[in-house]
Amino acid sequence: MSISRFPVPKLEDLPEDIRARILAVQEKSGFIPNVFLMLAYRPDEFRAFMAYHDALMDKPGGLSKAEREMIVVTTSAMNQCQYCVVAHGAILRIRAKNPLIADQVATNYRKAEITPRQRAMLDFAVKVSRQAEAVEEADYAVLAEHGFSQEDCWDIAAIAAFFAMSNRLANATALKPNPEFYAMGRG
Amino acid sequence: MSISRFPVPKLEDLPEDIRARILAVQEKSGFIPNVFLMLAYRPDEFRAFMAYHDALMDKPGGLSKAEREMIVVTTSAMNQCQYCVVAHGAILRIRAKNPLIADQVATNYRKAEITPRQRAMLDFAVKVSRQAEAVEEADYAVLAEHGFSQEDCWDIAAIAAFFAMSNRLANATALKPNPEFYAMGRG
Amino acid sequence: MSISRFPVPKLEDLPEDIRARILAVQEKSGFIPNVFLMLAYRPDEFRAFMAYHDALMDKPGGLSKAEREMIVVTTSAMNQCQYCVVAHGAILRIRAKNPLIADQVATNYRKAEITPRQRAMLDFAVKVSRQAEAVEEADYAVLAEHGFSQEDCWDIAAIAAFFAMSNRLANATALKPNPEFYAMGRG
Amino acid sequence: MSISRFPVPKLEDLPEDIRARILAVQEKSGFIPNVFLMLAYRPDEFRAFMAYHDALMDKPGGLSKAEREMIVVTTSAMNQCQYCVVAHGAILRIRAKNPLIADQVATNYRKAEITPRQRAMLDFAVKVSRQAEAVEEADYAVLAEHGFSQEDCWDIAAIAAFFAMSNRLANATALKPNPEFYAMGRG
Amino acid sequence: MSISRFPVPKLEDLPEDIRARILAVQEKSGFIPNVFLMLAYRPDEFRAFMAYHDALMDKPGGLSKAEREMIVVTTSAMNQCQYCVVAHGAILRIRAKNPLIADQVATNYRKAEITPRQRAMLDFAVKVSRQAEAVEEADYAVLAEHGFSQEDCWDIAAIAAFFAMSNRLANATALKPNPEFYAMGRG
Amino acid sequence: MSISRFPVPKLEDLPEDIRARILAVQEKSGFIPNVFLMLAYRPDEFRAFMAYHDALMDKPGGLSKAEREMIVVTTSAMNQCQYCVVAHGAILRIRAKNPLIADQVATNYRKAEITPRQRAMLDFAVKVSRQAEAVEEADYAVLAEHGFSQEDCWDIAAIAAFFAMSNRLANATALKPNPEFYAMGRG
Repeated sequence: MSISRFPVPKLEDLPEDIRARILAVQEKSGFIPNVFLMLAYRPDEFRAFMAYHDALMDKPGGLSKAEREMIVVTTSAMNQCQYCVVAHGAILRIRAKNPLIADQVATNYRKAEITPRQRAMLDFAVKVSRQAEAVEEADYAVLAEHGFSQEDCWDIAAIAAFFAMSNRLANATALKPNPEFYAMGRG
Repeated sequence: MSISRFPVPKLEDLPEDIRARILAVQEKSGFIPNVFLMLAYRPDEFRAFMAYHDALMDKPGGLSKAEREMIVVTTSAMNQCQYCVVAHGAILRIRAKNPLIADQVATNYRKAEITPRQRAMLDFAVKVSRQAEAVEEADYAVLAEHGFSQEDCWDIAAIAAFFAMSNRLANATALKPNPEFYAMGRG
Repeated sequence: MSISRFPVPKLEDLPEDIRARILAVQEKSGFIPNVFLMLAYRPDEFRAFMAYHDALMDKPGGLSKAEREMIVVTTSAMNQCQYCVVAHGAILRIRAKNPLIADQVATNYRKAEITPRQRAMLDFAVKVSRQAEAVEEADYAVLAEHGFSQEDCWDIAAIAAFFAMSNRLANATALKPNPEFYAMGRG
Repeated sequence: MSISRFPVPKLEDLPEDIRARILAVQEKSGFIPNVFLMLAYRPDEFRAFMAYHDALMDKPGGLSKAEREMIVVTTSAMNQCQYCVVAHGAILRIRAKNPLIADQVATNYRKAEITPRQRAMLDFAVKVSRQAEAVEEADYAVLAEHGFSQEDCWDIAAIAAFFAMSNRLANATALKPNPEFYAMGRG
Repeated sequence: MSISRFPVPKLEDLPEDIRARILAVQEKSGFIPNVFLMLAYRPDEFRAFMAYHDALMDKPGGLSKAEREMIVVTTSAMNQCQYCVVAHGAILRIRAKNPLIADQVATNYRKAEITPRQRAMLDFAVKVSRQAEAVEEADYAVLAEHGFSQEDCWDIAAIAAFFAMSNRLANATALKPNPEFYAMGRG
Repeated sequence: MSISRFPVPKLEDLPEDIRARILAVQEKSGFIPNVFLMLAYRPDEFRAFMAYHDALMDKPGGLSKAEREMIVVTTSAMNQCQYCVVAHGAILRIRAKNPLIADQVATNYRKAEITPRQRAMLDFAVKVSRQAEAVEEADYAVLAEHGFSQEDCWDIAAIAAFFAMSNRLANATALKPNPEFYAMGRG
């Protein structure tokens, strides 16, 4: 069974920068996450996607990396995105050093063992992901009460929005998670 | 009333490449579309967003530019995104040379004066935008029956996905459409 | 393409009172809004519809005529009624002397440049239109806080209810908006 | 507990034509259905509502009177309209000479003991009531297969649309069904 | 027309304990409620279902028997379960000695003539039935304000949950209500 | 943090039969699954629940035990039931001898690596779980085409219905999954 319903290019046919990026992630992770191969079908989109992803997920900021992954897993589960829940679930377990947290937020984030501040973060992320048309200043006021800065608020919204795109791409391409992800970080 | 609920940087404070891009669009359009100013708050995200946008909307391909804008306006209306409906509604009217089409697809694309092929395109785009988890091979089979190529299918899905992100960013930032857009292309 | 999926009678075949009403609106507007021709298929329903419409939209009262049209455009957009959004959008632009307001409330009324009082009015109208079963005294209390009288409350509810009917008739008959409406009142 | 959250005028204060209509229904039914008193708050709307109602429900046509009431009860139950389900449920029992049919269609019309033709009628009525934006020619084709004429199709749509309005008025005014209705026609 | 789409065993073929239970209810009610015959297709499930039912509905406790039936009728109506609404509607009328209450809560419990305490009970039951994933401590706090004990809270939740199962069984088996139920308790 | 928001009885305070059942499961599993302790608050309900569970999940039949667990995990994920997804996910991995299947069906069963027959089984189970009111003979016809017997159809429906109850109980009691479940069966 293919990892994507669209053609998956061979590594050797890819532009140099994309191949380099893919080999780097392979070196680091021990395997190539399928999203890289799926997106490589479209080199320009690959580059923009990765640049966007890195700008949101890898830069310094008020949200910890584990918290960013919590946003990804929670909203991706609402959107029934198998790839993002499984792959980012693994990353979340590792970054949070918590083997349980990914399954908790994926199944019902309201019941997860998280702080009230994280709960407010996820409530907002879910609203952006599922009902952005109704986001209002009152929603930002709740975030402020929990100590989130203006920068943090943007980050939460932007991560939820970026994965709204990513979830749709993965679902439309029938992207399969690599088997390696399922057991990673389970302690 | 501000154009975004987040800070809007001054043109002179922006990195050179971003300022250049903004001045170019201003030169072409006669005004600066507010989405550029909103996103300039985050230069790296600005660059990735625009690169992604151009990769999808400006490249050659089987979908006409008007058809791509139809996808944007239809799905953005479902997501209640004021900025995208108003701004891309203007672009659609101009590209389609049809002063009526944008309001038709924004209010109910099922009643718009479009071809059966375009209807199939929009049905698929709406499914990706609103219910991507349920996209299946049967949906692609309908597209194929209407003559859409593999490349076209990716384009429809990717445009719908990209604007799912864009709609959420605009709604979360309370982005306002420029007044100029409302009357453009109305003949 | 026909303006309605049902037969459209000729003017000369209509009962005198209906023809007179249609000629009067044609004289005033310069064209015959298609809703008149669609409904003329059923003279008794035409008469009742117009009498009801006029009782709600043309009588004096606490809501300005522009505000009544705001209710129509906002709720009709939620109901994806192409005819009502396009036709009443034109009337709203003219009555409010504001070329932007119709597209703003049609795409996302929560982001429109309206007063808090108008926002409360539209929140209530949307609840009546989309979720009337859950309307309670607490909803009326919010209206009262914004200075709406008992009469005003009835008007908001009755206009939202009337266009819930009208939207369904237009959608079921595939009623097309006249091309003239799209550009009216755009300044 | 009042029958409506809005003021209910006294019979003697009503315009002559409205009082006459109310006395006539009282004579016929043995009591005054509360909808008459609720609407009498607004004489012009009362007249238009009753004229519209009679044009749809009392005229000759391809749908039996019981079938028209089936449409009313089914769609009003979907809209959670207590008044319309209870009052028209009584009328349906009487017109259909069937003490069970009203509760059957009100709770789940798909399980009611009706003909396939009536099932098609109700499927269409429910679509008009709950999702009119998606009504298409294919829906009319199903009706035609079951022998419904053009006139019948309009009637089904128009009755569903009229009660979409009526349900919202009753819910917004907190209209109470008369106690008499509950037991009528139960044999 | 059969009472269930699955085979209905004959009384004489049933295990002794099940036949005894069925004969007892027949003796008490004058007829055999169809749910007994439907479930008798599976004797072990029959026994577990009845034991569960009795543990929730027949034991002493803070909720009156009429209140328990109110929960059943309200949530079963939301779930469009014809059998449960009709059969438990009859029981509710009898237990509440109120011929109107069942139709009131079945059509729109927010408009029923019940106490504020009963309204809080039903709001909670409906949340458990329709949106249990979002139940939180704040929901229990509302119940506590209305004087419900810990035991009562469990009972409300457990009854709503049990009938969530029961409604699905009845809908999936196309279980028909006995004609006797419709008129019972109507005074 | 407690395993349930309701009181959890001590083992030594429980009736003998319930303590015996709990000790047996502890002996077999190495720990006591929290659902046993949560339900022990109500011994009669505990007994009925377990009897029902065993009647559906442990008896012989046309559905394999892994397939029954697939139904549980898929529908419980739709209902956002953390306990059932995590606990039955573990059981599914073990019974299917497949460390990936549980996360696949929990995140999006339409993308899981299952047979077309299993897909039909899950489509039906999801319909019973989420939209039982619309189940019709056509749904059973699809099952029959895939070779499911009458007995199998009942089993699928009954399992989906039973866990509709179970999911609501777990969500309403804020039942926590035992940490042991998360990693079980991951190979």
